[in-house]
Amino acid sequence: MSEKETYHMTPEEFRRHGRAVVDWIADYYERVESLPVLAQVKPGQIRASLPPEPPVHGEAFETMLRDVEELILPGLTHWQSPNFFAFFPANTSGPSILGELLSAGLGIQGMLWATSPACTELETHVLDWLVDMMALPDKFKSSGTGGGVIQDSASSASLCALLAARERATAYSSNEHGCDGRLIAYSSTQTHSSVEKAVKIAGLGQQNLRLIQVDDQFAMRPDDLARQIERDRQANLVPCFVCATVGTTSSNALDPLPEIGRICRDEGLWLHVDAAMCGTAALCPEFRYIQDGLELADSYCFNPHKWMFTNFDCDCFYVADRAELINTLSILPEYLRNKATESGAVIDYRDWHIPLGRRFRSLKLWFVIRHYGVEGLRHHIRRHVDMAQEFVSWIEKDERFELAAPAPLNLVCFRHRGGDEINQRLLDRLNQSGELYLTHTCLDDQLTLRLCVGQTHTEPHHVARAWKRIQQVATELVCE
Amino acid sequence: MSEKETYHMTPEEFRRHGRAVVDWIADYYERVESLPVLAQVKPGQIRASLPPEPPVHGEAFETMLRDVEELILPGLTHWQSPNFFAFFPANTSGPSILGELLSAGLGIQGMLWATSPACTELETHVLDWLVDMMALPDKFKSSGTGGGVIQDSASSASLCALLAARERATAYSSNEHGCDGRLIAYSSTQTHSSVEKAVKIAGLGQQNLRLIQVDDQFAMRPDDLARQIERDRQANLVPCFVCATVGTTSSNALDPLPEIGRICRDEGLWLHVDAAMCGTAALCPEFRYIQDGLELADSYCFNPHKWMFTNFDCDCFYVADRAELINTLSILPEYLRNKATESGAVIDYRDWHIPLGRRFRSLKLWFVIRHYGVEGLRHHIRRHVDMAQEFVSWIEKDERFELAAPAPLNLVCFRHRGGDEINQRLLDRLNQSGELYLTHTCLDDQLTLRLCVGQTHTEPHHVARAWKRIQQVATELVCE
Repeated sequence: MSEKETYHMTPEEFRRHGRAVVDWIADYYERVESLPVLAQVKPGQIRASLPPEPPVHGEAFETMLRDVEELILPGLTHWQSPNFFAFFPANTSGPSILGELLSAGLGIQGMLWATSPACTELETHVLDWLVDMMALPDKFKSSGTGGGVIQDSASSASLCALLAARERATAYSSNEHGCDGRLIAYSSTQTHSSVEKAVKIAGLGQQNLRLIQVDDQFAMRPDDLARQIERDRQANLVPCFVCATVGTTSSNALDPLPEIGRICRDEGLWLHVDAAMCGTAALCPEFRYIQDGLELADSYCFNPHKWMFTNFDCDCFYVADRAELINTLSILPEYLRNKATESGAVIDYRDWHIPLGRRFRSLKLWFVIRHYGVEGLRHHIRRHVDMAQEFVSWIEKDERFELAAPAPLNLVCFRHRGGDEINQRLLDRLNQSGELYLTHTCLDDQLTLRLCVGQTHTEPHHVARAWKRIQQVATELVCE
Repeated sequence: MSEKETYHMTPEEFRRHGRAVVDWIADYYERVESLPVLAQVKPGQIRASLPPEPPVHGEAFETMLRDVEELILPGLTHWQSPNFFAFFPANTSGPSILGELLSAGLGIQGMLWATSPACTELETHVLDWLVDMMALPDKFKSSGTGGGVIQDSASSASLCALLAARERATAYSSNEHGCDGRLIAYSSTQTHSSVEKAVKIAGLGQQNLRLIQVDDQFAMRPDDLARQIERDRQANLVPCFVCATVGTTSSNALDPLPEIGRICRDEGLWLHVDAAMCGTAALCPEFRYIQDGLELADSYCFNPHKWMFTNFDCDCFYVADRAELINTLSILPEYLRNKATESGAVIDYRDWHIPLGRRFRSLKLWFVIRHYGVEGLRHHIRRHVDMAQEFVSWIEKDERFELAAPAPLNLVCFRHRGGDEINQRLLDRLNQSGELYLTHTCLDDQLTLRLCVGQTHTEPHHVARAWKRIQQVATELVCE
């Protein structure tokens, strides 16, 4: 049968189209800086350009690639633009993209060790490497009682940590008989919304999530945490879980891990530390103070898919006692039984997260670490922090603006002193220009702009130009 | 600054290394048939070949690609081998791999419509296309009250369905106050283990999952379901959720959707239909009987990453009333607020699943549908079914073997009549040979072999050779 009759793309066609896609991506990176960062389309505009009916017959690959260029590209917000300063970054890099390509090409399933041993073993190995690279507590290594796994996101990591905490607190009774409405979780008012989502999913209920007050630097107040735990115990409730954050989403606030950790240890609560954004900074010894106290945590996560040049999805999640996680999430139907699992000599990552199936995600992380080396990664983290700190110095010198929060690393929260309305107009005009993309938050009840330096290709001149545009637009707005 | 000093891979280097990876993958597909399907390594063997310390300095890409060949490849089980007949397939194709490459290259984040409108709109569009392509009930289209979303896996889809069911049954009280141990979910004894995992995660508790009996074809018995619901109501419990399966994992059993659906409608229970494996068959009109009764379902999923040439992860999850799903999973912190969301004119997919972040997964699905066209996809589904049915006829002609269950589509459950021990030895010897890979299940308390035809490149001669080997080994074992 000829390949045409099979409809499949032949290896030769794959080589040809693959090269075209590789070239398209290389071209994209060469021009991304010139594209409007924030997509300038209206709701429904992209769909309106697509044919309403699915194709009955196959189409040429060239047509599809042309449609990506003509129909899809205008509807994208360019996260890989060096002028992207919004949210937190989701940066990537050449070795990561090619690692993902290889993973897609191999198309293996790593749900069990047996379904592709190298997928499991490389993941364990690279996550152990990262413990050394970032000087994380040794207990998170697979050689002891702990270990690491790649999750899709910090949201899922928080959920898994909460579930393990729930089961520890109820001696696996919640898994068996369901929740009883008495379990209590704690985060701060600044903790990521995914913890609220997790307490709903896990059956604790939002009313049983206590939002602990923060200090004037937006960090969790241990005294308020201790008081709240005490109050809950007196009410015959069951405190089980605390989520502390290393670099909150709003302002990069650093919760005081030593004090929170001691409370959790004394009270027997599970401490999860969410360092999704800032964790990567610990590659550099001078920033490791951010994880002081981490030895008191039961679980930890950070996202190479934010600030470590590894494309989404790649959240590294560590537990100090893997048995607690596995006992919480394990299932073993007959059709997944196999000798390797029964020998106990292997890790089956299906029991470490929500989904059963999993792709070969450690490949891209391995490629990134090997391509840059520890020194290369540090170089970029330091540059990003330097750029953000220079931006801080510019804010401090312009009397029209003020810092809204401490900027320990690469996120700067600032605002025009003229109030919410001018800040909103400033934000809208900057983003509509397409020249840069900032997002906002609310701190001390005031609209606050956020500029985060973390895109792979952001250089000092991009930040300088962003500042110049911010100043220009502020001047325009006051004159109008 | 020279590119060398930045450590980044330059666009020119990316072109060169990208071509090397594309060629490596094309070569891989040209030789995968000659590789042992099941990895022939021992626990720890792959890790032992990796350097214990992470690299301080960057390494050449060529070295990394060589290590994939030399260190990783021997540790892989080749899911893309045409001799892979194990589990269910996780098949892929050239256009899917290149779609995933483009998604990695663009590196956008689709958590909100605003963070890349085309990511959201293409996904909605392609999932609407599939409703037409498979003649799914119109209510699952986004133009009405429903809609589709890509989830990572059917496990996550089941969990989301269960959560929405939980909230419907408790008027969102579980989200607010937590579960109370009274909610009851139903599946059959043959339902995928992910439902058991979901009831634990969602705080219902495993004791509150009723495993309904199956008939002699391993399909759920509606009479037993009705009885059990009645019993639970009498015990003052709260039935809320039924998971029916179109193609169970063990044997491809088809639960009777019309009867189960009527019970759910009359009793006010959420019906989720898991067609992870078999759903794809509905591309062909002659197989659409498998989804008779689906109009009674509240949610539905099937996995293009199993049998539709789209690489993992890609589970298509549909709901009849998207408001119920969104109200269950929605969170809206200040830093995610934006005008498009507040206008109500857009979909924000973050509220349709567990994680917040999401990559551009519809791109690969769009490429697959356009590359093959509906006719091309049908062609392959029919061929796979034909091959499996021919295998059935061979089993029926060899007196040493028997079918263990009906084989409606592409999964054949069979066993040697000589008992569990000979079947175990048969399975082990076949898999250890590396020539093919089968897995097992347990039906009627007997060890049963499963042969599933669904790999992209499986041709009749691969199935014929598998059968010949099975017969040969059976002869050898009896003679030993």
